[in-house]
Amino acid sequence: MSVVVGLDVGGTKIQAAALRDGEVVGSFRTPTPLTGATDVERSVVVAVDGALAEAGAGREALDAVGLAMPGATDRATGSVWSAPNLPGFQEPTPVAIGPTVSDALGGVTVAVGNDASLAMLGEHRRGAGRGYRNVLGVWVGTGVGGGLILNGELFEGHGAAGEIGHMTVEPAGRPCGCGQRGHLESYAGRGRMEVRARELVKKGRRTSLFKLQQKRGKDRVTSGIWLEALRKEDRIATMLIDEAVWALGIALSTVQNLLDLEAMVIGGGLGDRLGQPFIDRIEREIGPQLFVPDRPPALLPTGFKDLSGAVGAAVLAGG
Amino acid sequence: MSVVVGLDVGGTKIQAAALRDGEVVGSFRTPTPLTGATDVERSVVVAVDGALAEAGAGREALDAVGLAMPGATDRATGSVWSAPNLPGFQEPTPVAIGPTVSDALGGVTVAVGNDASLAMLGEHRRGAGRGYRNVLGVWVGTGVGGGLILNGELFEGHGAAGEIGHMTVEPAGRPCGCGQRGHLESYAGRGRMEVRARELVKKGRRTSLFKLQQKRGKDRVTSGIWLEALRKEDRIATMLIDEAVWALGIALSTVQNLLDLEAMVIGGGLGDRLGQPFIDRIEREIGPQLFVPDRPPALLPTGFKDLSGAVGAAVLAGG
Repeated sequence: MSVVVGLDVGGTKIQAAALRDGEVVGSFRTPTPLTGATDVERSVVVAVDGALAEAGAGREALDAVGLAMPGATDRATGSVWSAPNLPGFQEPTPVAIGPTVSDALGGVTVAVGNDASLAMLGEHRRGAGRGYRNVLGVWVGTGVGGGLILNGELFEGHGAAGEIGHMTVEPAGRPCGCGQRGHLESYAGRGRMEVRARELVKKGRRTSLFKLQQKRGKDRVTSGIWLEALRKEDRIATMLIDEAVWALGIALSTVQNLLDLEAMVIGGGLGDRLGQPFIDRIEREIGPQLFVPDRPPALLPTGFKDLSGAVGAAVLAGG
Repeated sequence: MSVVVGLDVGGTKIQAAALRDGEVVGSFRTPTPLTGATDVERSVVVAVDGALAEAGAGREALDAVGLAMPGATDRATGSVWSAPNLPGFQEPTPVAIGPTVSDALGGVTVAVGNDASLAMLGEHRRGAGRGYRNVLGVWVGTGVGGGLILNGELFEGHGAAGEIGHMTVEPAGRPCGCGQRGHLESYAGRGRMEVRARELVKKGRRTSLFKLQQKRGKDRVTSGIWLEALRKEDRIATMLIDEAVWALGIALSTVQNLLDLEAMVIGGGLGDRLGQPFIDRIEREIGPQLFVPDRPPALLPTGFKDLSGAVGAAVLAGG
């Protein structure tokens, strides 16, 4: 009855999944504390217990824990740093979250990895990417992240491979959060799309995006709000999603021409929410740009939606 | 005293290298016949004998032959097809050059692979890329080709990986030979650079490129002519090389952000001829575009210049 718990520690929530024999048998979600590393580590332990309880198990059944972290990670030391959206882990100084969580759980093994890579691992081993040898995971959310499976294994280069969000799609184009211009994330990341929408409103254009945001009482334009505005044929939302599809078409065809992949899994908050129609549009955009047009990559939705990262963290930990 | 001969079968020349104990001990060059596959296969055999003679060896010392071919290849059947610049191999119907050459040489083993990939293999095992785990080879010639070493091994996807020439660097930009627009090759491939120079002359701009071509009696603007025009500060040549460097900066930084490589080897006819100053300029162009700026890839000239492909073909054949 052994259980492995994987956790995806994001900037807004900690999402945990309990796996038994490779199947998800429980999940648990808690907000990410914004008060520093110690509180994040405590909430991770709470989420482990929560997922165990949902799986009908206790700590005695816990075999191992995996942590998917939104920053640079070191597997050997279980530490994390340079995570721009995670208070307590933003500095370039490594924080040893792995050993701390291990101690708190009575010495259980804790494996640590990067969230974008582990989401790809989760989808490859248990979800949409099963059976493919060479696959790209594309996570379209606040930013745009990526994970690569090459020759059946996670490919991370020195540790930073898969940064598709910072591929140039339009030289001297829209500003990116990283300080440069014209990146995929400048057009397809929800954060930059919201910035662009606000600029257009300042220039006198009209959109329902911010009214919907107020109505729903959200602190940002969520994926659900984008979907609702699209359905209402809001012009600004339609135009910005058109541009996101255009940018994804350029970036993903470029990756395909470089790596000759079998499949791409499209997920992330916005990708999951916009779903199959969004994926179909990206597919139509990629097609004409392929150097080997008769062998396009299969474009797939995720198998686990926002649980991909947690499942991948569990896989990393042996689950 | 066993020898392996590798051959790079290009659109204009066949270049052979004889390797003994992994060292180049002889080389031979002959023009590529433009009269079909049978004549190409005969010239390959002539080039094998030529390289053997240069190595002071005869056919009895020949262990194996490797062929680097400018098109789609199948290792299992030793066949080649869809090679746009090689008369006799242009159609999508496979031509079994491997078995034919093997028969002509008394049954010796013949291995066949793609030229851009094998040039990278040659540089990785015997040349500039030695000791690196993840490397991109960038071949700047008539077109722009690429080869990838990932986790220490050649990475070819389904067989077409490494096509960096057809990465988009400027959406809706200059036409590419493949029928699309704004590709790296549209700006950094010598063929398209010559087309662009002719367009500018038609618009009334002046350049010494075509006078130099006439003076040297060449049927195209060669890499040597580009270098001479650059040295004479020809404005059109300077501008087009500036644009090539700009396009390479975008494409190679995009590859780096995606794959987090340790090194890139810059070769090809134009790359080899323009040499270190060209590589230094590309390096300065890439730097500011890197997502992980403190760990840029090492940019290296080739170890074998125009022999990289032949050496790689020999390596493929066990040399």
